[in-house]
Amino acid sequence: MSDLSNGAAWMGGRIIPISEASLPVTDWGLTHSDIGYDVVPVWNGAFFRLDDYLDRFMASVAALRMQVGMDRQDIVNALHAMVGASGLQAAYVAMVAARGRNPIPGSRDPRDCDNHFYAWCVPYVHIVKPEIANRGTSVWVAKSVRRIPKDSVNPRVKNYHWGDFTSGLFEAKDNGFETTLLLDHDGNVTEGPGFNVFALFGDRIMTADQGVLHGITRQTVIEMAQERGLRVDVGPLPVSAFWQADEVFLSSSGGGVIPVTRVDDRHFSNGAPGPVAQVLRRDYFDWLERPEYRTPVRSPR
Amino acid sequence: MSDLSNGAAWMGGRIIPISEASLPVTDWGLTHSDIGYDVVPVWNGAFFRLDDYLDRFMASVAALRMQVGMDRQDIVNALHAMVGASGLQAAYVAMVAARGRNPIPGSRDPRDCDNHFYAWCVPYVHIVKPEIANRGTSVWVAKSVRRIPKDSVNPRVKNYHWGDFTSGLFEAKDNGFETTLLLDHDGNVTEGPGFNVFALFGDRIMTADQGVLHGITRQTVIEMAQERGLRVDVGPLPVSAFWQADEVFLSSSGGGVIPVTRVDDRHFSNGAPGPVAQVLRRDYFDWLERPEYRTPVRSPR
Repeated sequence: MSDLSNGAAWMGGRIIPISEASLPVTDWGLTHSDIGYDVVPVWNGAFFRLDDYLDRFMASVAALRMQVGMDRQDIVNALHAMVGASGLQAAYVAMVAARGRNPIPGSRDPRDCDNHFYAWCVPYVHIVKPEIANRGTSVWVAKSVRRIPKDSVNPRVKNYHWGDFTSGLFEAKDNGFETTLLLDHDGNVTEGPGFNVFALFGDRIMTADQGVLHGITRQTVIEMAQERGLRVDVGPLPVSAFWQADEVFLSSSGGGVIPVTRVDDRHFSNGAPGPVAQVLRRDYFDWLERPEYRTPVRSPR
Repeated sequence: MSDLSNGAAWMGGRIIPISEASLPVTDWGLTHSDIGYDVVPVWNGAFFRLDDYLDRFMASVAALRMQVGMDRQDIVNALHAMVGASGLQAAYVAMVAARGRNPIPGSRDPRDCDNHFYAWCVPYVHIVKPEIANRGTSVWVAKSVRRIPKDSVNPRVKNYHWGDFTSGLFEAKDNGFETTLLLDHDGNVTEGPGFNVFALFGDRIMTADQGVLHGITRQTVIEMAQERGLRVDVGPLPVSAFWQADEVFLSSSGGGVIPVTRVDDRHFSNGAPGPVAQVLRRDYFDWLERPEYRTPVRSPR
């Protein structure tokens, strides 16, 4: 038996250690970043909102016009088998559809490629370390770069086009900030590397609708906020308005709700996590345990 | 001895068959499309304009703030060893710098990653089949998608962010066209998947300066045109002006100068390759043989 405690992958029907999982250097998934993917969290031995993540993933695969030779149930079975074999109780679980290699020498036609599915899982990833998230994180608004517009690459098809995020991250780190958020070309707040962004104004929370991933955790935040009696507005969030927020927080499948205490030189909620962000952060970990959202990972045979 | 006639790769100092060359699924080169690359042609046993391709590649690596642990001469040596071992006399030779894996569990900091270099070569690639290029190709102006703007991802750092190109290619194929060209958000002609675009007006050729790769073949076309006594204007090329061109052609390291006889429903130069495009196409294959641009591939020891 291989050691899968650092992570496992499902590739072509085989379950292998994550360290052995690789993609050919000529796969268009790599050379054209021609991939749709999704990441579902496993928490306390169960997938969270698995159907919602799968809905989005299957929509991405269809939008990319890929035929991976597996249906939704095949994919579910692969995820169970892989996570079950890994023994991980809390995991970051990636499902990936790649354009694949083009078997016709010289063909530049994406329709000729051998599309394929693979998956991998590693121990649960927090996009911001919990000890930082608990006391509130810092965010840098990228100055040198704008979010790739939705009419260039559709951000609702979860993808690996991260060049804009990476540029923003270097800026953030250079300036001593934990992470970055990007504006669109009209000066609206969009999203950051791995998260959506929320702002609180009184009893109303706002988040972007266009030019961003419609995160499942974003959706969970909307539902949690409504259950708490908050109003939720989904629409353009100009950065000029953003600066006036009472609280700012991030949402991610990698850590839930992450309070923000500082954006550039502006401190929010007196430099401590805001009360609403704190409530929603605790709510998220409670929701992870709600039976109606849990799909326990099947035990390996 | 492995069979390297279908292609070879240089990875970590080893030369292996192209079919065995792969990247870990967790390499940020894949998961963040965090890669700078370049492609130098080998023609008749020699690299063409190797120094120019290396200049651009080294500039890309620096712009991406990667340290691959190899200097320019190390990279040259790797390319010679790989192509020499393959025995290929005409080849597409890719050199790649990847962000690499992040060895620190949970780190989201690009500065922590183990950057690395690899290379691969396959038999020479024509982005448009020569028999089609010789009689002129067809190009579809993408309608659903605009080129990723330069303030989102820098197109002068040759990269794998091809989502916009792939969308355009599907549109082109759906409409029965060979390839696609993309406009920017201001309605200017930019580039297509693997090529720059030129338009001829009288004795003047035009090509875009901003929002495009500064192709080495584009540069060769500029120099060939000047040697032929043509004027060259480098600057914005609005699509409205583009429709009035006398001739249209593409430039690519994968095939040189490619005449275009049709863009959407507009036929150029009476549906045959234009005389200037034909002259430059022949010139390019002559220039490939000019001793001052050739670096013969070293024989393997």
